[in-house]
Amino acid sequence: MGNHKLDTASCRDYFNAMTDQPTAAVLIIGDEILSGRTKDANLSLLAGKLGSIGIEVAEARVVPDDESVVVDAVNALREKYTYVFTTGGIGPTHDDITADCIAKAFGVPIDFRDDARAILEEHYPTGELNQSRLRMARIPDGAELILNPVSKAPGFRLGNVYVLPGIPMLVEVMVDGLLEKLTGGDVVHTHSLAAFVPESHIAPGLGAIQNDLPQVRIGSYPFLREGKAGANLVCRSTDVSALEEAAQRVRTLIAELGTKVEAEERS
Amino acid sequence: MGNHKLDTASCRDYFNAMTDQPTAAVLIIGDEILSGRTKDANLSLLAGKLGSIGIEVAEARVVPDDESVVVDAVNALREKYTYVFTTGGIGPTHDDITADCIAKAFGVPIDFRDDARAILEEHYPTGELNQSRLRMARIPDGAELILNPVSKAPGFRLGNVYVLPGIPMLVEVMVDGLLEKLTGGDVVHTHSLAAFVPESHIAPGLGAIQNDLPQVRIGSYPFLREGKAGANLVCRSTDVSALEEAAQRVRTLIAELGTKVEAEERS
Repeated sequence: MGNHKLDTASCRDYFNAMTDQPTAAVLIIGDEILSGRTKDANLSLLAGKLGSIGIEVAEARVVPDDESVVVDAVNALREKYTYVFTTGGIGPTHDDITADCIAKAFGVPIDFRDDARAILEEHYPTGELNQSRLRMARIPDGAELILNPVSKAPGFRLGNVYVLPGIPMLVEVMVDGLLEKLTGGDVVHTHSLAAFVPESHIAPGLGAIQNDLPQVRIGSYPFLREGKAGANLVCRSTDVSALEEAAQRVRTLIAELGTKVEAEERS
Repeated sequence: MGNHKLDTASCRDYFNAMTDQPTAAVLIIGDEILSGRTKDANLSLLAGKLGSIGIEVAEARVVPDDESVVVDAVNALREKYTYVFTTGGIGPTHDDITADCIAKAFGVPIDFRDDARAILEEHYPTGELNQSRLRMARIPDGAELILNPVSKAPGFRLGNVYVLPGIPMLVEVMVDGLLEKLTGGDVVHTHSLAAFVPESHIAPGLGAIQNDLPQVRIGSYPFLREGKAGANLVCRSTDVSALEEAAQRVRTLIAELGTKVEAEERS
């Protein structure tokens, strides 16, 4: 009857201290995500892209199209994390309030900007750059434009806050263009194994591996498939040899429990 | 060249004051969601269920399996919103730290509880209630159990915080059992229309409708489909007649722009 209680906080502190990773927060702005009608696709997209250069998403928030809530969230997150990425609310309609919120959060003025206007003027046929579209050239003072190679309306960066649209396809190309400008860290590698093993059977062994290898974060994510209980056992670390040691021990544990690895994935 | 700039903050203040809705926050706990490997399904699920009894999800946060981050988020959210629903981290493995975090957030002790243990004892065949499974009977002092009719391991409520597992199927049945215990508000009805109309074309008219009907929240959500720009125009209100007026005006606007409604949905 061993005590498998782990000091998880210490593991993470150790992990964070070891890697000294830059961190990011994602701020998803939009009533539609909160109401449940639209499922967000940008968090996993941003987490994947940023993770590839060693920037971990450490927190995400979803907030409504509500100025004071957005302003407060921007200010809370930009203090806490190396980078903040916002998605949504920079289009031409009345509910697109993100640019104004960012200006307010930083306490700077916002107005139409010539370089942003020039981009839109070049993109739209003569006469089609109407007042609504022109709103997308309103940029907070001191911001740097983030180019949008698809639909042209730019995002912008102010301080450590990167303001992106809500459409995932645009987020994807715009972040691709940004990556080389960001300061990455050590990439966290992942090795995951899935097996039809109840979490409670593997828990003691898994806890022991976590205790022995604090530089690896080991997560267990249960699933029910075809009426059978299983778990995805996910090891993550910047230290590849410790990661492989952890994964090997998880594999041994699964075999000892008389079952087999159903799926295995490295990234 | 009218000025279509709207005072969106006032619209929302008006909306909130009119409806005096109870609010909810959803706190999604888990490294796997933040790393982008797993897409959250619980936010939209909870938003739909709670919305059906007039409780709006006003904010969501995704945080890692990190005690201090979880504790801070719980305390920030329980102060701000009528209800807080957490998902994830109440299983039998070392990374399941939610119950401890909730105890810490409320400053109360946590220990094995007889009623929770009895539920697990009844569920598992003799000898199968191992130490790891027994961890799921650790409940903060003063909490009320939330029954889990499927896999039995209970959630719990402490104050205004409802602690649920991460598996969406379990969240669904457990929230269904909770709904009658929650104090709902006026239900926010939705009427949405989708059309292949560029947002910028419809923006001025849409802004005018929003100005005229502050008790309706009108959102515009652009999409690109088959290379064509369109928008979902979503009207939301507790006031059904104002909602229908808004939707009718949006329909007229779409027709005036020479296009047609591709999809329409009421809920």
